Amino acid sequence: MKATVQIFLKPGVLDVQGKAVEASLHGLGWPGVREVRVGRTITFDLDGADKAAAEAEVKAMCDKLLANNVIETYRVEVE
Amino acid sequence: MKATVQIFLKPGVLDVQGKAVEASLHGLGWPGVREVRVGRTITFDLDGADKAAAEAEVKAMCDKLLANNVIETYRVEVE
Repeated sequence: MKATVQIFLKPGVLDVQGKAVEASLHGLGWPGVREVRVGRTITFDLDGADKAAAEAEVKAMCDKLLANNVIETYRVEVE
Repeated sequence: MKATVQIFLKPGVLDVQGKAVEASLHGLGWPGVREVRVGRTITFDLDGADKAAAEAEVKAMCDKLLANNVIETYRVEVE
């Protein structure tokens, strides 16, 4: 199965990378860009055939390693 | 409009972050994880109402700033 994890900073946390990208895009001639947020996407293959069990496993991986639950939120997709 | 850009290393390029995450997951007790790839996701709001024009703009932003076309590929979604 294929797992995709999207990790973003929580809305209240200052996204420094996002601010930097936003300023650069403005400087390059795209003033209409707002609310830039930069996150991580992690994809991987996973053994097993039970989708629900796999989703639970991937959430456990997020809680243990992939995401920092204090300042980040994550979204899991398993196909 | 809301733009989402997903940027990944091209398949032939060694994904060092992916390898590190894979080794860590194996060490934490998930040996069934393979082919880990780590990419960036950038979301932002964009002025304008024409979807096709917005997509072209976002692709131009990717080519100019957001992605390194030598080693990365990107996928653009505009809603």
